[in-house]
Amino acid sequence: MKKYNFNAGPSMLPREVIENTAKQILDFNGSGLSLMEISHRAPDFKPVVDEAVSLIKELLDIPEGYSVIFLGGGASLQFMQIPANFLLKKAGYVNSGTWAKKAMKEAKHFGEVVEVASSADDNYTHLPEIKDIPSDLDYLHICTNNTIFGTELRKDLDAPVPLIADMSSDIMSRPVDVSKYTAIYAGAQKNMAMAGVTVIIVKDDMLGKAPRELPTMIDYRTHVEKGSMFNTPPVVPIYSLLETMRWCKAQGGVKEMDRRAHERARILYDEIDRNKLFRGTVEESSRSLMNICFVMNDEYKDLEKPFLEFATSRGMVGVKGHRSVGGFRASCYNAQTIEGVNALVQAMKDFEKEH
Amino acid sequence: MKKYNFNAGPSMLPREVIENTAKQILDFNGSGLSLMEISHRAPDFKPVVDEAVSLIKELLDIPEGYSVIFLGGGASLQFMQIPANFLLKKAGYVNSGTWAKKAMKEAKHFGEVVEVASSADDNYTHLPEIKDIPSDLDYLHICTNNTIFGTELRKDLDAPVPLIADMSSDIMSRPVDVSKYTAIYAGAQKNMAMAGVTVIIVKDDMLGKAPRELPTMIDYRTHVEKGSMFNTPPVVPIYSLLETMRWCKAQGGVKEMDRRAHERARILYDEIDRNKLFRGTVEESSRSLMNICFVMNDEYKDLEKPFLEFATSRGMVGVKGHRSVGGFRASCYNAQTIEGVNALVQAMKDFEKEH
Repeated sequence: MKKYNFNAGPSMLPREVIENTAKQILDFNGSGLSLMEISHRAPDFKPVVDEAVSLIKELLDIPEGYSVIFLGGGASLQFMQIPANFLLKKAGYVNSGTWAKKAMKEAKHFGEVVEVASSADDNYTHLPEIKDIPSDLDYLHICTNNTIFGTELRKDLDAPVPLIADMSSDIMSRPVDVSKYTAIYAGAQKNMAMAGVTVIIVKDDMLGKAPRELPTMIDYRTHVEKGSMFNTPPVVPIYSLLETMRWCKAQGGVKEMDRRAHERARILYDEIDRNKLFRGTVEESSRSLMNICFVMNDEYKDLEKPFLEFATSRGMVGVKGHRSVGGFRASCYNAQTIEGVNALVQAMKDFEKEH
Repeated sequence: MKKYNFNAGPSMLPREVIENTAKQILDFNGSGLSLMEISHRAPDFKPVVDEAVSLIKELLDIPEGYSVIFLGGGASLQFMQIPANFLLKKAGYVNSGTWAKKAMKEAKHFGEVVEVASSADDNYTHLPEIKDIPSDLDYLHICTNNTIFGTELRKDLDAPVPLIADMSSDIMSRPVDVSKYTAIYAGAQKNMAMAGVTVIIVKDDMLGKAPRELPTMIDYRTHVEKGSMFNTPPVVPIYSLLETMRWCKAQGGVKEMDRRAHERARILYDEIDRNKLFRGTVEESSRSLMNICFVMNDEYKDLEKPFLEFATSRGMVGVKGHRSVGGFRASCYNAQTIEGVNALVQAMKDFEKEH
């Protein structure tokens, strides 16, 4: 049976990315060696890193003066690495969900942290209103897409201070004005690659200002200076990132990704709003295009498990909502297809007819 | 042409590990999804982590009271994470090479560091004599195999303090008395997996004693408590680790790996010692079984580049020595075959005949 992958991350990747990666694992560039067993210093691997960096710069139209680096450890490690490098005295954090809150917690190890806005009191069902941003912040940290609660700030804030953004789950899905950011970071396992590599875009002239001695691996300068090759990088995950960036460019880049995201989300939210069984969990103006969260209407609560089983029987994978929200979540990252979204909508319609 | 992979890391892996990983990337356990796009919370993935942990415990005969965790970031990140977690006041470091020295440097961010022994003055051509270990150290840090210089401490030290070892390049190549260690860590990209995952074996009751607040991701307890699933782990690298551990067990485990390592090294060192063109760079008693370093004898120095070209023409990959040593390095990790070693020896013999 054909499977439709709605996993929140690691998540669906283009089939050609998967097949090309598998092929290189069997024989890398016809070298007779596997991609799994080549040296990261091999003459064939540097071009992989270089092309991946150059495609990210091209796709996001990154201005001069920024570096792109690849690290291991996930975005969660960045929650401490960002303030270690950029928090001089005081940073602002927008508390828009679980991950944003985790990032804020780690920053407190390194200086004063101001919660500039929060929607915690409403269980994160909308984006907090961000106003009165203090102008003496080193940076304002935002999580642009809240994977668990299904909210998204799909624009670049106007703020009196530089921004730092966790874009783990919506990077590469829209054009971004990178010039507004001191740093953008993303666990790559949604829109960019298999799990195991984190992408960090840093503004070079903001580095090296933090009033603390940093361990070598925590200092971004280490990785900027060595082009992500200070130590052994995650070779295969980086390769899969390169393949995904090539695919993204061939499909038309982030503008086209943006168009598709809007189209997928419109189809799915329209059905959620129309179908008598379901309702969205997020205020309309805050709705994410990446993670579409919905639940059974109260009078149909008992149908939650039966619908999950029904959807599963139709080949849907990963539509169960996060345990802290319940219900359902359909993640629609770049590789998600209209066919997949239509299959889910059809399942919702057919299930409605039965009840 | 058949290739013989002598890369120092990432390095040769068993062919069945490569083929099984490629297969799962195309279709994971017949699920219709790729290993690259499954959730780390998927019911199929936890058994991967559990079996990998359990095989490591079985293969190394790890006693009760130790945990095995998988992290990203490489052994280089462990250089700071180890002292962050275990350095209370004073730690001892054995300076046996480039990596050992790097580990020592990072420890200085966290407390007093004593260089207990060093062979730096002899350019690391032998292991330093380790004696008069102070008894008030929190731990003594050793790098059991020095990949760049080709020395190896192929035994578990008797010391009056607990040991911590970077075993990146000889873990799983011999039985180890884990009970002597507070922690053992290893970048997995030599004997255990593709690059992108680091294995850490920690003694549970030594955790949580350090007199400092640790960022969540730096505290080993985070990962012990969540079974390496606090955040998204490197899914595909961990899968390749599982496959390699299965292979290791099926081949006879670490005793058999040890036997093979001795056999491969004997064949190669015998030829180095016999062949008029070459000489080993390491004192005999310190010679590594994993990284076999040799150079041209002085009177044949000009033949270095021609020999590299000759070896390359015979299918050898990665036999160039590290830039800080020069000459040649044949890395012979677990997956290296007698056939590969014999092919290199034959190339050395044939080249000798020509000159």
